[in-house]
Amino acid sequence: MAKPGDLVEIVTKNKKYVGILMPKPEIIKSNTIVIKLDSGYNIGIEKKKIKKIKVIKKAKKGKKKNIKIKQSKKLPTVSILSTGGTISSKVDYKTGGTYASLTAEDFIQLEPKILKFANIRAKQIEQIMSEDMTPEHWIKIAKEVYKELNKKEVSGVVITHGTDTMHYTAAMLSFMFPKLSKPIVLVGAQRSTDRGSSDTFMNLICSVIAATQKIGEVMVCMHATTNDDFCYLHRGTKVRKMHTSRRDAFRSINQMPIAKIWPDGRIKFLINYKKPDKTNELNIKINKKVALIYVYPGINQNIIDYYLNKGYKGIVIAGTGLGHVPTYLIQKIKKAVKKGVAVCITSQCFYGRTHSFVYSNLRRLSQTGAIFCEDMLPEVAYVKLMHVLGKTKKLEKIKELMQKNIAGEINPIISKDMFLV
Amino acid sequence: MAKPGDLVEIVTKNKKYVGILMPKPEIIKSNTIVIKLDSGYNIGIEKKKIKKIKVIKKAKKGKKKNIKIKQSKKLPTVSILSTGGTISSKVDYKTGGTYASLTAEDFIQLEPKILKFANIRAKQIEQIMSEDMTPEHWIKIAKEVYKELNKKEVSGVVITHGTDTMHYTAAMLSFMFPKLSKPIVLVGAQRSTDRGSSDTFMNLICSVIAATQKIGEVMVCMHATTNDDFCYLHRGTKVRKMHTSRRDAFRSINQMPIAKIWPDGRIKFLINYKKPDKTNELNIKINKKVALIYVYPGINQNIIDYYLNKGYKGIVIAGTGLGHVPTYLIQKIKKAVKKGVAVCITSQCFYGRTHSFVYSNLRRLSQTGAIFCEDMLPEVAYVKLMHVLGKTKKLEKIKELMQKNIAGEINPIISKDMFLV
Repeated sequence: MAKPGDLVEIVTKNKKYVGILMPKPEIIKSNTIVIKLDSGYNIGIEKKKIKKIKVIKKAKKGKKKNIKIKQSKKLPTVSILSTGGTISSKVDYKTGGTYASLTAEDFIQLEPKILKFANIRAKQIEQIMSEDMTPEHWIKIAKEVYKELNKKEVSGVVITHGTDTMHYTAAMLSFMFPKLSKPIVLVGAQRSTDRGSSDTFMNLICSVIAATQKIGEVMVCMHATTNDDFCYLHRGTKVRKMHTSRRDAFRSINQMPIAKIWPDGRIKFLINYKKPDKTNELNIKINKKVALIYVYPGINQNIIDYYLNKGYKGIVIAGTGLGHVPTYLIQKIKKAVKKGVAVCITSQCFYGRTHSFVYSNLRRLSQTGAIFCEDMLPEVAYVKLMHVLGKTKKLEKIKELMQKNIAGEINPIISKDMFLV
Repeated sequence: MAKPGDLVEIVTKNKKYVGILMPKPEIIKSNTIVIKLDSGYNIGIEKKKIKKIKVIKKAKKGKKKNIKIKQSKKLPTVSILSTGGTISSKVDYKTGGTYASLTAEDFIQLEPKILKFANIRAKQIEQIMSEDMTPEHWIKIAKEVYKELNKKEVSGVVITHGTDTMHYTAAMLSFMFPKLSKPIVLVGAQRSTDRGSSDTFMNLICSVIAATQKIGEVMVCMHATTNDDFCYLHRGTKVRKMHTSRRDAFRSINQMPIAKIWPDGRIKFLINYKKPDKTNELNIKINKKVALIYVYPGINQNIIDYYLNKGYKGIVIAGTGLGHVPTYLIQKIKKAVKKGVAVCITSQCFYGRTHSFVYSNLRRLSQTGAIFCEDMLPEVAYVKLMHVLGKTKKLEKIKELMQKNIAGEINPIISKDMFLV
């Protein structure tokens, strides 16, 4: 009898499948067998289509290795703070799904090679999948990071994080640390560590290497391609998850990544980056009453009012194209701005720059007092507006700060004495 | 004295700029001069920074050419229906912005080369920028297209359209025409026709060529690269505007474009496409009570209730990663489904496939009855759900139709007798 964990061959009328037999998930129809393919994907096969199940190899019980962690005086020290996510998840043998479970110390056992590049400290500060991150978590993480940054012996901080909202967290931390004496590197995995195709190992090594560099920025370190060749180090305010499952899901938007990092320790810088400040400055004062709205043909015209009535202080709009909204929303935006609510315009195209002058409707929108956010990503404008509203309630000042580059979120336009219209 | 339309050289302390002097826009600060660079972009330069303005060439008055349109019995006939947008816009010399103005007949005068490939019929059916498209416009456009399709002498229909929401319209038309005997090709321009860098001309030629092909699909035809070399013909349900201003802004997502088209008439097919049906079938019955919500960390937990209270019958969620929502929304979604509201899950990554089984939270979300939309784009799921709700109110049937490929919006998974979990 085949048992979960066994390598099996399943024969159907049309095909043969080889994979690890998975424990039966709660909510898959009971007439289904699930196996994990060599590719790392799980597939379900209807029982009635199965002609034969053959056990190729019985499961063997895993043995946890005890690796002795040697400290080296020659190496820098990196703090790994774990928050949860796929990078610290394993298969839940009750449901057959994956869930967050590894603690920070486990990472060293998982990938001992990281000790070639740094002495590792580790602390588990949170244990959630990243879809459940909230602004409160960002504050908590920032405080923990700040503690590590202020330790003299620490060269940089790695934060392991679920990938779904890693770019939101990276952007918020970029604004929360106006001064940084050491790098902050967020890292995640698209495939859990129990999969052959897991990106955990290389991402982890490269993030530790990144955390030993002299960089004063918050960054995201993830697979650059679908191969295990090198990672990209992305600016925290210029990166977005652009694929649901590929290992190279994270892409720098509107600029190049900061660097390429190879797991053997080589690093190649691709653009200019911020050098470390002498001190660290933490600013966690944010206003959470900010909403993010993507517009589309037929969007309910009262959606702006909904947030006004709820006492929201800021609204980021992901407009179409250069930053358009349906004309019937312009009056609503005008009303919001008159009430003192900051309305910021970004583009759902993601690539490219918003523009407040090209078309008559954009001019009308701009005349309401809506703030065009240059080439900022909607997600980045969302967290930045929370940050800016934590500093000031004056619309003029909010506009000035939103349109000023604070943490690499806005690229300059061609020349200093002109602006694109 | 330099006048609007003159080619001028403007000298500042740091640099020289050469371009066409633009009429002063209403809302640009009055201390600014605006010129149109050779690149097609307008720039504003503060007057106080200007050392000198030199007129290089005075503006000459344009002369409208009268082109005699010859009909050729050897050529197929293409109907161009114009709806507005940049492709039919020119500079408004009052505001300095661009506005929609050209009628369909003007296109022939604009680019006479289209007559090499087809006899042209033209009709202006709408005159709006695409941010103002609504479901009502989609119905109107579909009816007009249907009339053209049923004319024996017409080989295909080209719809000129603003680019901002062109992919929404293309997707909706894909569902509104379950049977198509001729191709429907949407075309737009990222740069207005008065710019040197305008993509109007090549896009228009290639769209006419596309409309003469034996294809039974709704497609989008736009620049493939930033050069004027060839266009891509995208499937209407698999395309998205991915850049605010570049001419190659439209990208096929999760699959290859249908074809490459060169302006000299060559066409190279890249994937399989639907052959023409014998007849045309129009189904304009849609339910507009559908909302599209992008989730993010900190999203208001009552947003689902807002739409329930407004009597919405369908909600499409653009989740994070594989289709996640913050856990606190899962109960809200459960409530919506219990009320008979269809909740559909897509991903804000755009690339890749949603997944209802990989993580515990996804399983919980799936158990609420939420419908995972495979590799469908959020915008496409939004218009498809309107279409499906026009057919049925039964959740089981809605689920079946949403997860079934109707118009190329869902790519199949590896093999017939298995499914990815």
